[in-house]
Amino acid sequence: MTFFENLQPGQKYFTEGITITEDAIIRFGLEWDFQPFHVDKIAAKSSLFGGLISSGLLTMLVTFRLCVQANIFSRNAVAGLGFKEVRFPSPVYPGNTLRVAATVGQCRLSKSKPEVGIVNWGLETKDENDRLVCSMELSNMVRCRTASA
Amino acid sequence: MTFFENLQPGQKYFTEGITITEDAIIRFGLEWDFQPFHVDKIAAKSSLFGGLISSGLLTMLVTFRLCVQANIFSRNAVAGLGFKEVRFPSPVYPGNTLRVAATVGQCRLSKSKPEVGIVNWGLETKDENDRLVCSMELSNMVRCRTASA
Repeated sequence: MTFFENLQPGQKYFTEGITITEDAIIRFGLEWDFQPFHVDKIAAKSSLFGGLISSGLLTMLVTFRLCVQANIFSRNAVAGLGFKEVRFPSPVYPGNTLRVAATVGQCRLSKSKPEVGIVNWGLETKDENDRLVCSMELSNMVRCRTASA
Repeated sequence: MTFFENLQPGQKYFTEGITITEDAIIRFGLEWDFQPFHVDKIAAKSSLFGGLISSGLLTMLVTFRLCVQANIFSRNAVAGLGFKEVRFPSPVYPGNTLRVAATVGQCRLSKSKPEVGIVNWGLETKDENDRLVCSMELSNMVRCRTASA
């Protein structure tokens, strides 16, 4: 179990991978982000991307799940506070395999809650060719070891 | 069909609603954000929130889908550029019904792509008691009317 006290700016963690299938892209588009370049292979051909691409929101979910799966911030989190600067520098195409590098950023104690810390994370998601497809910052409230003593 | 030229800062759109069920919260947690306060009613009771709450990512997806459903930015979008300052000021509990107010922010022509504009949107998601549960900014590339002439 990792507590606030165990996290130091600059610590870096790497996740396993997930392959993004055409089916996953279309199903996600159907439910959450129905735009031609996410659901329609023919229309997607004449889009900016030249073919179907993952919704940025799906890429974001995959990024988050990979971190949760690796227990990077899930076991000690009290609450998620939000995301900043979520960017999608390159599109994700069917068949791409994504992995995440998560780096601890600024860490501070909460002003309002005595036994809780605020931890910032920088996440970078890359495909199998090392292209950056998603970057974001997020903030979590994390339990302090003293809170469990 | 709305083009870049039709969008002016300050224009405001309102969506229909979606009710967030307990089942939706747990299924989403199971797939994307497995944390006790999203999947385990018993553990969630002793969490900061006193019960199961929606993952912020689910609240974000619902927000986006409500806007797409209302054709607010889907029919003319060339690509989504990213999200800024995604915040979750209040938790979403099972049974809450969410609606979104979308406001056009800064609009400018793309420097690199001649017939494309960049439109910023401010989204605010509220529950049936008018509590703000999610706010975010997003940027879209939007087709100009001249591009279709």
